[in-house]
Amino acid sequence: MTLYLEDLSVGQTFKSRAYLVTTEEIKNFAKQYDPQPFHLDELVAEKTFFKGLAASGWHTAAITMRLLVETVDISGGLIGAGIENLRWFKPVRPGDALTLECGIVSLRKSVSNPKQGVVKVKHVVYNQHAEPVEAFSSTIIVPCRVEVGHPV
Amino acid sequence: MTLYLEDLSVGQTFKSRAYLVTTEEIKNFAKQYDPQPFHLDELVAEKTFFKGLAASGWHTAAITMRLLVETVDISGGLIGAGIENLRWFKPVRPGDALTLECGIVSLRKSVSNPKQGVVKVKHVVYNQHAEPVEAFSSTIIVPCRVEVGHPV
Repeated sequence: MTLYLEDLSVGQTFKSRAYLVTTEEIKNFAKQYDPQPFHLDELVAEKTFFKGLAASGWHTAAITMRLLVETVDISGGLIGAGIENLRWFKPVRPGDALTLECGIVSLRKSVSNPKQGVVKVKHVVYNQHAEPVEAFSSTIIVPCRVEVGHPV
Repeated sequence: MTLYLEDLSVGQTFKSRAYLVTTEEIKNFAKQYDPQPFHLDELVAEKTFFKGLAASGWHTAAITMRLLVETVDISGGLIGAGIENLRWFKPVRPGDALTLECGIVSLRKSVSNPKQGVVKVKHVVYNQHAEPVEAFSSTIIVPCRVEVGHPV
C-alpha cells in the first residue's frame, strides 16, 4: 500500500523481513567503500578492535535502506531530509540476519509547502539474537493526498 | 603517516582526491541497496523529486567513507562511535567528481580509557562546482601513542 501523510500516525510501526549478511557481501562492500582490514580479512580482523570480520557501518546503513524501501512504500519514494544519531552498537558478522524496525516519532504538515508533511522516523536494526546493531532517526518528506476540486 | 591522538589538533583539516561518480555505479548501488526509480532509471527519474538520475544518499555516504579511508590514516583504523547531522544538500549526478574535506572540531582523552581519545570530525563533500552535496559530523576513537616504560 502506497502511503501518504494521512496514512501515518505517531506510534505506527513497520517491520522488515530478515536480511542475511554473507562474508562475500561484507568483503565486496568493503573493497569498494571501506577498505579496512577488519572488513576485508578474517585473520587480520581477529587482532583488531572488532575481534573478527565485521561489516562496515556504512554497509549496515545501506542494508537498512534496502529493507526500508521494501517495507515502507511512501508515495513518490523515500526522500530523506536528514539523519540524526546514527549509532552502531555491535559488529555485524557474516551469517547475521538483520531485521529493521521503524516507528513514527512525530509528524506535521510542512509550513513552506502544505501539500507535504515532515515525518520523523526512528529506525533500529536487530540481529538474529534480537540485539540492536544499529539505530538512527530520519526526517522524511511525505506528500499529502491530492485534494481534488471535483468529486471523483 | 599513521596518526595518533597526539598528532591531531582542533582546526586541522584533510582533503581527499576527487572521486568520479558514474551512471553505472549509481545504478549498481541502487539495485542492491536503494532500489527506487530516481536512482535506477534516467527517464523515470526526470519526473521525480530529483528531476533526473541521482545517487542514493547512502551511496554518497559510502563514497565519503572510501575517501576518508584513503585520506586519514588513524592508527588501528577508523572506528566510528556515531554520526550526527547527516544531510544531503544537492543531488549527486552521473559525472560528478566528489571531494571530501574534513576538519577536527574537538578532541579529548577518553575518561574510561586513557589510552585513547575521543575526536569529533566535521565532514563536507563537494562536487566539481564546489557546491556542498553532503555533510555530517562523526565521533571517532583514536589511540594515544603507547607510553613505554623503558627507553627505546
